[in-house]
Amino acid sequence: MLTAQKTADILSIFNSQGAMKLIGARLTEVDEGIAEFEVEFKPELSQQNGYFHAGIIGTLVDTAGGCAGATLMPPGSNVLTVEFKLNLLAPADGEKLRARGEIIKSGRTLTITQGKVFVTEGGKETLCALMQQTLISIPAK
Amino acid sequence: MLTAQKTADILSIFNSQGAMKLIGARLTEVDEGIAEFEVEFKPELSQQNGYFHAGIIGTLVDTAGGCAGATLMPPGSNVLTVEFKLNLLAPADGEKLRARGEIIKSGRTLTITQGKVFVTEGGKETLCALMQQTLISIPAK
Amino acid sequence: MLTAQKTADILSIFNSQGAMKLIGARLTEVDEGIAEFEVEFKPELSQQNGYFHAGIIGTLVDTAGGCAGATLMPPGSNVLTVEFKLNLLAPADGEKLRARGEIIKSGRTLTITQGKVFVTEGGKETLCALMQQTLISIPAK
Amino acid sequence: MLTAQKTADILSIFNSQGAMKLIGARLTEVDEGIAEFEVEFKPELSQQNGYFHAGIIGTLVDTAGGCAGATLMPPGSNVLTVEFKLNLLAPADGEKLRARGEIIKSGRTLTITQGKVFVTEGGKETLCALMQQTLISIPAK
Repeated sequence: MLTAQKTADILSIFNSQGAMKLIGARLTEVDEGIAEFEVEFKPELSQQNGYFHAGIIGTLVDTAGGCAGATLMPPGSNVLTVEFKLNLLAPADGEKLRARGEIIKSGRTLTITQGKVFVTEGGKETLCALMQQTLISIPAK
Repeated sequence: MLTAQKTADILSIFNSQGAMKLIGARLTEVDEGIAEFEVEFKPELSQQNGYFHAGIIGTLVDTAGGCAGATLMPPGSNVLTVEFKLNLLAPADGEKLRARGEIIKSGRTLTITQGKVFVTEGGKETLCALMQQTLISIPAK
Repeated sequence: MLTAQKTADILSIFNSQGAMKLIGARLTEVDEGIAEFEVEFKPELSQQNGYFHAGIIGTLVDTAGGCAGATLMPPGSNVLTVEFKLNLLAPADGEKLRARGEIIKSGRTLTITQGKVFVTEGGKETLCALMQQTLISIPAK
Repeated sequence: MLTAQKTADILSIFNSQGAMKLIGARLTEVDEGIAEFEVEFKPELSQQNGYFHAGIIGTLVDTAGGCAGATLMPPGSNVLTVEFKLNLLAPADGEKLRARGEIIKSGRTLTITQGKVFVTEGGKETLCALMQQTLISIPAK
């Protein structure tokens, strides 16, 4: 279980990200090495076919991976994305996205995470994207 | 130079993407194998340090790559992102982002593009992200 | 379980890859959506610190992913790698590599796989690399 | 131009990589932020269709990117690949591969490179693969 301090740190990252507010994301789970976010569909999140835009999927899962990684970083350190790679597996056509980030390897400087994104349509959830991400921990000054 | 029909096709993709409207992106260039978009900074596009969010960078450059790819696809075909990989090279700390997508290899089914993202701060432009992307062309029905 | 025909197809891919012979790889498992290969360390497979070279890790896991993908492709089709992305998680310092490819999503044209590579040192196995791969199925002529 | 010391460092990396000897690679250029390697085709480097294996392409270009990155790292530091992403653009069907790595962004800890791989067939050179790579510089002890 996360300490109260670590939980507060993750909430603080999430709450200070204007982009997460813009798309309407909410934090649905956070634990050691894990973070999960959800967002409901609205036309403002679409690409040209009315599916969730790949960039919105990327925004949600990049933050999920980043927050997952941050749960095991030293207090006060800042987390930045070095790179991420996103495969779109199925049209993200539905009413809700759920992005789950998990640490694969936590290092002193670099952390590697994996992210899975699920789309819900008519109550049925489908894996629609898979991410592999590298994070860097910037020590507190 | 693009035909009027092709230019209209790209504008149609761009205009029907709710996500591009949400972030405030505008199309600044489109030509054979090239598409460029810009977006001004606003706090709604930020990550926790006040820089442009990696996901917003991804949204802009994914669309730039997709539209670049679409310029050489057959009329009526739909373009979807198979995957993209984004390296963040420098903090996207500034007042404007410019994302430029260019075709590296255009094939019958798959198209590979490269995207570069520049951030402008105090009039100085810096390369802040590099993308490699695979697109698929879905033939018109 | 794989049909005898499909098993023969995978063996034929493996046996006709000169590169797998060159590095000394052997097929250790193949089943629906899964393929696994192993290779023993020899100095010819090293990078400058005496670990397995990232490119050798990539060669083994690219083939593991490709063969995993081929298990669910139509008979007679050819499998080609569109792209792969490999994160090195720990120094591949040891006496043996094991690369396991698994299908994440099998489509008519494209298949997405994940690959994990483990290094054994002194009897202890460690996850040392993670791959995300896109394959294309080329129909039989 | 590289200093004699830096040139010697790069040669030392190359010469101590068993994998580069195994595939028959030779260093054809090295300069500030640039490294280039070539390898002639032999059946031992093939995949199932007789083309250069994606893993061999990856081995060559991973080293090209790594050596390019090492040219700007502090003396005595070790270079390791964090991750690389390789798109195969065309069948690597030919008599020779040329892999060129170039630094895109050189940082204190991380360096980002791009790699291009060309295949020569009948005297004609074609771009057959594109790589994006993250390196880490490990300081001398």
